[in-house]
Amino acid sequence: MSGQSIFTAYLLAAVSLPASGQNQSLLQRLGYPADAKLLIIHADDLAVAHSQDMASFEALNRGAVSSASVMVPCPWLTEVADYAKAHPEADLGLHLTLTSEWKTYKWGPTAPRDQVASLLDPHGYLFSEAGEAVQHIKPEEAEREVRTQVETALKMGIRPTHLDSHMGVLFTKPAMMAVLVNVAHDYHLPFLVLKIPGMPADMYSALSPTDVILDRVFMAAPPIKPEDWLSYYTHILKTLPPGLSELIVHLAYDDDEMKAVTLDHPDYGSAWRQRDFNVVTSPEFRKALEENNITLVTWRELGKPLPKP
Amino acid sequence: MSGQSIFTAYLLAAVSLPASGQNQSLLQRLGYPADAKLLIIHADDLAVAHSQDMASFEALNRGAVSSASVMVPCPWLTEVADYAKAHPEADLGLHLTLTSEWKTYKWGPTAPRDQVASLLDPHGYLFSEAGEAVQHIKPEEAEREVRTQVETALKMGIRPTHLDSHMGVLFTKPAMMAVLVNVAHDYHLPFLVLKIPGMPADMYSALSPTDVILDRVFMAAPPIKPEDWLSYYTHILKTLPPGLSELIVHLAYDDDEMKAVTLDHPDYGSAWRQRDFNVVTSPEFRKALEENNITLVTWRELGKPLPKP
Repeated sequence: MSGQSIFTAYLLAAVSLPASGQNQSLLQRLGYPADAKLLIIHADDLAVAHSQDMASFEALNRGAVSSASVMVPCPWLTEVADYAKAHPEADLGLHLTLTSEWKTYKWGPTAPRDQVASLLDPHGYLFSEAGEAVQHIKPEEAEREVRTQVETALKMGIRPTHLDSHMGVLFTKPAMMAVLVNVAHDYHLPFLVLKIPGMPADMYSALSPTDVILDRVFMAAPPIKPEDWLSYYTHILKTLPPGLSELIVHLAYDDDEMKAVTLDHPDYGSAWRQRDFNVVTSPEFRKALEENNITLVTWRELGKPLPKP
Repeated sequence: MSGQSIFTAYLLAAVSLPASGQNQSLLQRLGYPADAKLLIIHADDLAVAHSQDMASFEALNRGAVSSASVMVPCPWLTEVADYAKAHPEADLGLHLTLTSEWKTYKWGPTAPRDQVASLLDPHGYLFSEAGEAVQHIKPEEAEREVRTQVETALKMGIRPTHLDSHMGVLFTKPAMMAVLVNVAHDYHLPFLVLKIPGMPADMYSALSPTDVILDRVFMAAPPIKPEDWLSYYTHILKTLPPGLSELIVHLAYDDDEMKAVTLDHPDYGSAWRQRDFNVVTSPEFRKALEENNITLVTWRELGKPLPKP
């Protein structure tokens, strides 16, 4: 099972999840009516490629997405840090990274390789596949790597507003989920989490009562045809229930760099990311947001009611 | 003093160096007459960027360059390894890398960070400047990193034909030169070295009598104007003395990726690398090679007479 399909399965499971009820009190704490439709439109994978950064910055600057998250081990991190310093209002979280999924373009860990040996493939890169990663990774080494990523981002001048998990690796089992939750608690950050029925009983045991739990997450998946891209997204907006939802998109330009980064992988590839960019910046998408009374929110706003040190 | 200017000074010093005489016996060992003009046309910096790789592969495939070297810590290494496996005849060495010189696009070491701490800037990347790097780097940690780079390349399927040094960091002082020489000896590889008058007495003390020593190296430097690019290079060819010379070029396309990689650094920047590509693939350059009876050689050929295990 590929990493993307683990994540997709996780998300598809989530789509049908009824609102937990807990969020009505969150909506109230945030000052919204109980029937408000709050949506984070979230760009993943910043720092992977220049093309990814440029498209994501453009979408953030235009308000086409409300939030984004950054992959610390990737080579373009300094470009993102420059953007973060120039745009302190931008809602940037960390897309905690335990995989390096592309074929000819790879990255290693942020922590010293010998301290996170279980995270590495035979060439010293992070594993390509989420499934492979989960099989090999020792949770204590995942935690070491994740903490190094947070500390590195802070040193670079990125003050994250939230945490989530690249390819969902930290969502796959209780010990990994606990890494995400514990690190987020230590830094007083909200994080992407859904309560999915049928998960192991201890999957959510690290959560605290004040944690922000999303009602649902949407993300385009491979069966969607390119010509249906806009209608897939506008359908989500037209049928969005009240509560707190996140729409994850992957933004980049379909240029030579991005074609090479995503070589031989049309799913979540270069043209895919250009389609996502085209949709979220389109007048039709904007109109659907307005007509359906959807309120865009940021993770910064969601994190405000959290206990502070 | 910037890294590039250390290296340029080194090379400019080299340009006026008389042939050492030693190479007459090398020429003979290789089966060439004593007045042969042997030239390696060498593309630096493979694996830094997709654009760099594509332009360099194109030049290698067309015979416009005879050799190239690869930067192991850089993210596109797997792309180069795929090329190396598909083109076992390609003359690929390792451009041993102890610096990460660009502004918004960075890489760290190949060895575990905690084992090469003296190589790292405060964010865990290799230093930007060669001067800064040389000041901080402990030679034993440079050696650890260099050996890890060689072993990583081998594991990835790249069988290097030679070694040289990115931004000349290993050419700057005797203890660093000894790292290059000792590692090259251990792997029975030829390496880029010139004997430059006025260097410290022990600069070359690790060399053995059978090592291949170049007579001269040429590399474009910032004072050259873009409109003089072709004439700079053809002048080198027209006035090339007999012996063994290397012409170092930096090949990439002047595209969005490469513009972003080389941000704010026109020297050795994106347009510079496109100019280098345009020159070495031009009919005028090809004609000047032929008219001046220059024989292109590879490092593989130079390494053949070396003692083998």
